[in-house]
Amino acid sequence: MREVVRGGTASLDAVAVEEPLEIRVDGEAVATTMRTPGSDADLALGFLFAEGILAGACDVSSVAHCGRPGEEGFGNVIDVRSAAGIRLDPERLLDGHRVAPISSACGVCGRRAISGLAERIRPVDASRRVAPALLVSAVEAISRSQPAFARTGGLHAAVLVGDGGALLAAAEDVGRHNAVDKVIGALVRAGRLGAGAPPGSAPAVLAVSGRTGFEIVQKAAAAGLPAVASISAPTSLAVDLAAAAGITLAGFVRGGAMNVYAHAERLAPAAAPVHP
Amino acid sequence: MREVVRGGTASLDAVAVEEPLEIRVDGEAVATTMRTPGSDADLALGFLFAEGILAGACDVSSVAHCGRPGEEGFGNVIDVRSAAGIRLDPERLLDGHRVAPISSACGVCGRRAISGLAERIRPVDASRRVAPALLVSAVEAISRSQPAFARTGGLHAAVLVGDGGALLAAAEDVGRHNAVDKVIGALVRAGRLGAGAPPGSAPAVLAVSGRTGFEIVQKAAAAGLPAVASISAPTSLAVDLAAAAGITLAGFVRGGAMNVYAHAERLAPAAAPVHP
Repeated sequence: MREVVRGGTASLDAVAVEEPLEIRVDGEAVATTMRTPGSDADLALGFLFAEGILAGACDVSSVAHCGRPGEEGFGNVIDVRSAAGIRLDPERLLDGHRVAPISSACGVCGRRAISGLAERIRPVDASRRVAPALLVSAVEAISRSQPAFARTGGLHAAVLVGDGGALLAAAEDVGRHNAVDKVIGALVRAGRLGAGAPPGSAPAVLAVSGRTGFEIVQKAAAAGLPAVASISAPTSLAVDLAAAAGITLAGFVRGGAMNVYAHAERLAPAAAPVHP
Repeated sequence: MREVVRGGTASLDAVAVEEPLEIRVDGEAVATTMRTPGSDADLALGFLFAEGILAGACDVSSVAHCGRPGEEGFGNVIDVRSAAGIRLDPERLLDGHRVAPISSACGVCGRRAISGLAERIRPVDASRRVAPALLVSAVEAISRSQPAFARTGGLHAAVLVGDGGALLAAAEDVGRHNAVDKVIGALVRAGRLGAGAPPGSAPAVLAVSGRTGFEIVQKAAAAGLPAVASISAPTSLAVDLAAAAGITLAGFVRGGAMNVYAHAERLAPAAAPVHP
């Protein structure tokens, strides 16, 4: 709560909480993100998963806040420890953050950023189908799962929905990319996404509030998700990356209608299996 | 334009353009940001100004895209060159990006992030007054100056308004922080903000579309702006930083009303000058 003055009268107002989280790998600081506290372990795992630093829950022995409860700043540093026999390598992050390879020829462009990523990710299986109704229900699930947004108007949200329509994870954050890291990290932590996850357990749809930029599609691609849906618009590079990564990208998913910017063919019903 | 499928029919749709921009200082890459192309020199200058790497236009000899027109990726790398006798130091950026000092005691918290910044910035003069009507007109100016948003629904906007109500700068971008860097950089480039700027030439209000987070207030503080206004909500750390930096922070500026989260006293009319 913060004091707010409205028309000359002071009162208290709920505002979205924003605090820095320092993410460490085996004690070494690798990134600081401004986030809404809560689900920090999911955020750290999802972030490191999207950056290609960890492949799944099996790479991790523990995720815990540093320090002691009651100390100033407790809860704002989290340490991800490598599993026995594994060495998580934060150096990959430092490369990954550049987005595009830097050449001495002074060239960097969206196309190159996408081809750089395309080498790291496996495109989604073209035969994978997603029912259009799942995109609609995923976007609808955002408003149902967003209590703080209703109070503060200051939070982004993300949800993951399974093929059967189940809500697998939901998160809110002041940063849209953090909300996406939190939902993906929740499934990584549960062993349902990434290396070691049972076949067929990957979510069907990532839905986000607001705009879909390159970074969101990048995280979906790293997680092998077949579809991304939003209540609002995508950017050009988000569309191009979705096309390259085999991801169905829908925007303006409202009132049962939507705009599909990439891989609309996935939304067609699957051919009936042939019984010999 | 990108192909979009709506109800089974394909057409072309305007989407917000997003491309990486690599910012270099004297040939050395210091940051890559995903941005909407356009006003790249302003973006680079505003970014480096907010990070404390340059103090004003006098520190810079040239700002130019690298490479040759027509080459792949031309326009996505920009080089800021030091003025004669000046050495712009990108190392300051690498520290600045951490937001908070990293201590071996494992402590990082919002309060520390703010005190770290407070050492670098000078709080806004407490006697500086801003007319409430300026905040209202600045927020209204956003919608008037945002043609691409109307078309694509995918862009953030920022404007700077002077004490007399003049629109000093306006910018759109897929990233809200980029839009703010662009408007601040435009004034830095024109010699109206930063070291060497004429006294009293600093803008009165920065207005942004959407939410106000810590990073936006941080940029306003670096520029010495007295007031930040938004159509939407601020975050907790944005409120706390505005309070520490002496910045008036208003949210939900709509229909002539607003919520003031910090330094509401600045909005009171200045005392009439005493004529002896």
